[in-house]
Amino acid sequence: MLTYTFEKHSGVSLYEQLYRHIKEDILSGRLAAGEKLPSKRTLSGHLELSVITVKNAYEQLIAEGYIYSVEKKGYFVSRIDRPPHAAAAGAVPQAAAEPVYTLDLVTNSISAEYFPFTVWSKTMRRTILEQDTGLLQPTPFNGALELRRVIAENLQQFRGMTVDPEQIVIGAGTEFLYYLLIQLLGRERTYAVEDPGYSKIGRIYESNQVSLRRIALDEAGLSAAALRQSGADVVHISPSHHYPTGIVMPIARRQELLRWADEQEGRYILEDDYDSEFRFVGRPIPTMFSADRHERVIYLNTFSKTIAPSIRISYMILPPHLLAQYRDRLSFYACTVSSFEQHTLAAFMAQGRYEQHINRMRNRYRQKRDAVIDAIRTGPLAGKVEIMEQDAGLHFLMRLDTELTDDALRRAAAGKGIRLALLSDYYHNSAAAPQHVVVVNYSGIELDTLRRGLARLAELWEE
Amino acid sequence: MLTYTFEKHSGVSLYEQLYRHIKEDILSGRLAAGEKLPSKRTLSGHLELSVITVKNAYEQLIAEGYIYSVEKKGYFVSRIDRPPHAAAAGAVPQAAAEPVYTLDLVTNSISAEYFPFTVWSKTMRRTILEQDTGLLQPTPFNGALELRRVIAENLQQFRGMTVDPEQIVIGAGTEFLYYLLIQLLGRERTYAVEDPGYSKIGRIYESNQVSLRRIALDEAGLSAAALRQSGADVVHISPSHHYPTGIVMPIARRQELLRWADEQEGRYILEDDYDSEFRFVGRPIPTMFSADRHERVIYLNTFSKTIAPSIRISYMILPPHLLAQYRDRLSFYACTVSSFEQHTLAAFMAQGRYEQHINRMRNRYRQKRDAVIDAIRTGPLAGKVEIMEQDAGLHFLMRLDTELTDDALRRAAAGKGIRLALLSDYYHNSAAAPQHVVVVNYSGIELDTLRRGLARLAELWEE
Repeated sequence: MLTYTFEKHSGVSLYEQLYRHIKEDILSGRLAAGEKLPSKRTLSGHLELSVITVKNAYEQLIAEGYIYSVEKKGYFVSRIDRPPHAAAAGAVPQAAAEPVYTLDLVTNSISAEYFPFTVWSKTMRRTILEQDTGLLQPTPFNGALELRRVIAENLQQFRGMTVDPEQIVIGAGTEFLYYLLIQLLGRERTYAVEDPGYSKIGRIYESNQVSLRRIALDEAGLSAAALRQSGADVVHISPSHHYPTGIVMPIARRQELLRWADEQEGRYILEDDYDSEFRFVGRPIPTMFSADRHERVIYLNTFSKTIAPSIRISYMILPPHLLAQYRDRLSFYACTVSSFEQHTLAAFMAQGRYEQHINRMRNRYRQKRDAVIDAIRTGPLAGKVEIMEQDAGLHFLMRLDTELTDDALRRAAAGKGIRLALLSDYYHNSAAAPQHVVVVNYSGIELDTLRRGLARLAELWEE
Repeated sequence: MLTYTFEKHSGVSLYEQLYRHIKEDILSGRLAAGEKLPSKRTLSGHLELSVITVKNAYEQLIAEGYIYSVEKKGYFVSRIDRPPHAAAAGAVPQAAAEPVYTLDLVTNSISAEYFPFTVWSKTMRRTILEQDTGLLQPTPFNGALELRRVIAENLQQFRGMTVDPEQIVIGAGTEFLYYLLIQLLGRERTYAVEDPGYSKIGRIYESNQVSLRRIALDEAGLSAAALRQSGADVVHISPSHHYPTGIVMPIARRQELLRWADEQEGRYILEDDYDSEFRFVGRPIPTMFSADRHERVIYLNTFSKTIAPSIRISYMILPPHLLAQYRDRLSFYACTVSSFEQHTLAAFMAQGRYEQHINRMRNRYRQKRDAVIDAIRTGPLAGKVEIMEQDAGLHFLMRLDTELTDDALRRAAAGKGIRLALLSDYYHNSAAAPQHVVVVNYSGIELDTLRRGLARLAELWEE
């Protein structure tokens, strides 16, 4: 008969103690497969436990498959091969600490200090009050209608785009939208990205293991001729403001690409309009989506760059025939953005707060850019630098007058506590990369830090 | 000389009117490629506009590539092929309205009415106050450390799992995590899902165009023998509580699958523990992750089922060697859940509110399930139904005593305003599917509605 000892005040219930004892006996082989267990009544008498305690233990063992019951016969031990010999579990790799730099020109995080957090948190609180338990309801697959409506209005008003809210698909970041697009357009197609370009985009296509071409840019950006030669079907571009070169694709080139897309069934242009809001000179450049007459352009944009990187809300706009396919094949995916964040953003935009914020930030970034450029031009690097591409966006280029290779330059700068982003880093084909061109992501730079950093950088010319 | 008329009070600035006029002339061909434009001063005199207005218009046209300037020579029209003939844009397909049913046994949305929304909204408000602008900072790629810590503690306490917070990766829904796993494990592998099973899971693998096997279950779930025969490398299972059959995989079968995974390099088990919280009898079934000694099991779970479908927070737990690979290849992906939601959930859990909620819901669901089963057993379908698999989860099975085919049954029920989920719907291999078994997703059912619905359903036996 099974005999176990029980701890009365261990915090573990008697039923669980009995369950554990029997389970251990089965796993260790002390109770063999097929062996009959005592009846509940017998065991309860033997162990001085209540019948219900034994019953609960037996039921748990049945639920987990350690024992089974046969009607009118009783309980029997299941056939279980003992678990494989325990191996030492691998150590969990811990996150490495990031080095700290005096001056960091790589990080292009936007300045959270300028975000009207008070207004945003007020909007959050009002959203909680107004939506109440409605916040627990999931939004449609393509996002909350309120948000899609206000995005469509915003695009009409500030970007001159005519978009039906139904065409908009909301997702948790453009990275996630690329994934949906690969599923929508299919893995059979060949995708093309710009070289140089924002390296994450290429990595996403690579990580998805689709056929990928990297297309060298000329001074007007990506050309239809190079695209034709590559054999690509889908091209991913940022015509409003290319990162990191800053190229604004001229209208002739845009028309050329639209014609390329029209030439053959199944060609598409993914227009990534990620920082079009921060154009400092003149009016915004019209989108290719607006110029498209044959449903070849899919437009993408994000709020992570304009509000805060912690806000994971992006969207894409599908031409009608792709929307129909999306509904058919991909609308089973739940929207990845929480209902609460969508309603908060919708309210923030509907009150005009988003546009107000963008306008303020455009001015602040312009001032910041001017101050940074001024500090560079009047500082210890004066005469050793040339500043390029400065009409738009949150970065500009700075060519250094040096003989150092880019690798040596980066190392020398790092030795002085300065983290440089070099234009050549963004080239997949590094042979084509211009040397000594620094990408200055200025939005998060403090001017004092910058001045100190420039002084240290200038030491490179004195050594 | 260019001659245009201007509207003084149109709300469109003079510079923009001039820009539009010239742009139209270029696009229409009235201004030919290479043609020289008048100097800013000349045109300003001719049109009686300020020089700055002309300058702004010219600069916008340059930025968009309509014209270009040559130093000391002036402004010239770019070569632009006219846009392709405008075709009528396709109509945007609108979302179809969902039919309304008297009784809906398909929707398995959890009851939002029981969620402690007051506590949740208080937690949201406190998160706003406490985190303040810290909410604008992005979280690490694998999620906020506070949240990962409290999840690890929760798993230790309530699931007996020992997990390092670094092993946890937070994502916006398990659907998104499957995508990350396909990238992590690779598209070369063959994936296997359960047949029958939750249909979305198979669709996700199909939509990702990976090699997919659907493996028939026996009464203990998926077998290692069937898995070996399929040639799969990665198997996606829900051993704690299978949907829709309700099978709890017995320990012998679990050990069998762990041995299958150990047999060969590159085999993995994805353990989807989606509704393990709602086990009504005895203690929770231990996870396969805990029994795994060779880093073969990846554990997945979600808060969408336990809190609200609008909360898009799920997580996976990677064994150490996969975590190292993930860091190396996939940590460039930003975390898809907003910082705010992560901090709110972390605070909610740290206060013990999550566990409290789960315990309450477990009781409520048990009561609800008992009441629903009672209504069925004592209602007009008594004697025509058999209820099965009722110890766990948010659904149970109900076999109907009818001669109708499943299709006819579904149509007949729909004709009476009742939406049925049939077990056969979840079978890919429909020949293997048991007939007349209804999957009752009871959590959202109102008892009055149920009684009315059952009365209407009973009419099927009288016709």
